[in-house]
Amino acid sequence: MRIQVNQNTLANHINIVQKGISSRTTMQILDGILLNTINGKLKLTATDLEIRIESNIECNIMEEGAIVVNSRIFGDIIKKLPNSTINITVKDNNINIVCENSEFNILGSPAYEYPELPAIINQSSFNIPKDLLKSAIKQTVFATTQDETRPILTGVLLEISEGIASFVALDGYRLALRSIPINDNINTKIVIPGRVLNELNKILDDEDELTITTAPGHIIFNMGDTIVSSRLLEGQFLNYRDIIRKDHKTSIVVNRKELQDSLERASLLAKEEKANLVKLNIVDNKVIIKSNSEIGNVHEEINSVQNGDNINIAFNSKYIIDGIKAIDSEEIELHFVDRLNPCIMNPVGDENYIYLVLPVRLAQDDY
Amino acid sequence: MRIQVNQNTLANHINIVQKGISSRTTMQILDGILLNTINGKLKLTATDLEIRIESNIECNIMEEGAIVVNSRIFGDIIKKLPNSTINITVKDNNINIVCENSEFNILGSPAYEYPELPAIINQSSFNIPKDLLKSAIKQTVFATTQDETRPILTGVLLEISEGIASFVALDGYRLALRSIPINDNINTKIVIPGRVLNELNKILDDEDELTITTAPGHIIFNMGDTIVSSRLLEGQFLNYRDIIRKDHKTSIVVNRKELQDSLERASLLAKEEKANLVKLNIVDNKVIIKSNSEIGNVHEEINSVQNGDNINIAFNSKYIIDGIKAIDSEEIELHFVDRLNPCIMNPVGDENYIYLVLPVRLAQDDY
Repeated sequence: MRIQVNQNTLANHINIVQKGISSRTTMQILDGILLNTINGKLKLTATDLEIRIESNIECNIMEEGAIVVNSRIFGDIIKKLPNSTINITVKDNNINIVCENSEFNILGSPAYEYPELPAIINQSSFNIPKDLLKSAIKQTVFATTQDETRPILTGVLLEISEGIASFVALDGYRLALRSIPINDNINTKIVIPGRVLNELNKILDDEDELTITTAPGHIIFNMGDTIVSSRLLEGQFLNYRDIIRKDHKTSIVVNRKELQDSLERASLLAKEEKANLVKLNIVDNKVIIKSNSEIGNVHEEINSVQNGDNINIAFNSKYIIDGIKAIDSEEIELHFVDRLNPCIMNPVGDENYIYLVLPVRLAQDDY
Repeated sequence: MRIQVNQNTLANHINIVQKGISSRTTMQILDGILLNTINGKLKLTATDLEIRIESNIECNIMEEGAIVVNSRIFGDIIKKLPNSTINITVKDNNINIVCENSEFNILGSPAYEYPELPAIINQSSFNIPKDLLKSAIKQTVFATTQDETRPILTGVLLEISEGIASFVALDGYRLALRSIPINDNINTKIVIPGRVLNELNKILDDEDELTITTAPGHIIFNMGDTIVSSRLLEGQFLNYRDIIRKDHKTSIVVNRKELQDSLERASLLAKEEKANLVKLNIVDNKVIIKSNSEIGNVHEEINSVQNGDNINIAFNSKYIIDGIKAIDSEEIELHFVDRLNPCIMNPVGDENYIYLVLPVRLAQDDY
């Protein structure tokens, strides 16, 4: 292989594919980036066998070839070179890198040792605007569980039917659901690893659409020069629709920032206790937020527009704050059945996102 | 105590004194900030018994008093309150904090439990411009040792004589010396803990002068509203002047950024080895920098203006790069005696800073 490529371009693409490398891999070859020349471009590939990221770079190819090079060392070297033309020459297992007055020789591994992409069959595709996908990831993936003993809940369910793509995450304490209209006529129900969506989110820019291809066991996000593919999680996702009740007895509208600030202040004391407990008294167009621990107590009050009964209810402050932070409207609606059933919140006048959080049950006198 | 104070002002001053609190303290009272009203101001005090930071705040005092409050909780609460007037009322050991619609009650500790400032006697003072002190700290403190078994070398020597204040740090591998002219006629030789200088540097703004007061065992930095005092380190500092030789056989002038970039690239491979070894061939108005490890090798070349013999010499890349980074002139001078003796570097035409670094001794054929 003998190529010429711009330093800045190469550094940016290395940065993209490095997100596919796991720090926990035990296979040495997976610490590497596969470089190969294909269709007049240099293709970089990195994988941890769950996620696989490929990125194609415009460059000047004098001689075709392929090699695997340690990702960290290659990335550090390219990043530190001046923004100029880099000459890369591969001979046997040696990579020679020359840029202005710098010359590196690095030992690589043969390309045939690198794992191949599994064959994808029976695929179907649809398009989705990148900015909507980004916001759907941001609004759901945080609600997946970190508990590896429930692997299916470490992923985000993507359910597509009747022109609506629904992204759903839940961890047993809260549920986040984001709906996006799509133009393609497709039906599917798959679970995408949360980690893959987090890495994808870092790569996605806001422009244009991307094409998503699903196939049994796989999903592929095609952004043009860069392609992210991933294994899907296997197993049965909870039937989330049954959890979302509509028979609210109390609904309030509050300023989102005021509610978030008050809860964050109250949680400063709640943190001291194990349960992160904050108590809400929803009473006569006011929300009173209280928390206490051995070091002290806090009392916060904000105005609301209330519909329905007064109610006292308690939450783990982390779970309720996470949901409020995922919403960016100025005002927010909260709906309650009673102190034992979940609170459902959504941006005012927007049914495309809902966040549901379970209350903490207290003795009657403790609210 | 009953006071009114602006939220933003209080938060800024808490942030300053919190730098005096050690995360490793085992005395609960030292996790606290002492609040007391004095001379019409609110004084905040924090200490770990080595460093002590006091900061005085303009506020409206309705009733005098004092209390100790947990630094992290108090700081987090004040930071999260809206930028408005805060009412603080202390009664017994309870601190009541009210700001707009938020009310906190926090348990404090009685002020008499808080350690007092040791009595300072036989003091002498001098003034120093803050920006010069800041640069002197930045250019020396990194060269102190982290090795607690040589406690005196964890500090920076401040030696004042004949109108020159010299700041010196060394760790057995390198030495940094910064000289600042001062107007006061004072002679002293003290060792200031490196940690204290690091924290002081975060508090110092660039304007005006500050007054430094030294006394047996103590140093006090007076910035007006804020006063940082510290214990001094006890023991004999090395006679550093003997280490700095002047009988150079080779001197070169190079572009600082080019040298730093080349060494940083070379050290990417050097890092792989234990010794961080980089080799310099100084030959015929060029500097050739080489490094190698089992994964590969690197060859860098930069131009120099050379005076004297060619020389091959090797360094720990970290120690030589640290020194180059501490210099901000465009060009840098390096002086060598031979491959076994220290290299001395300074900004071109500026004798107020020198950095000395020991070479690594290799077999003759290994350069």
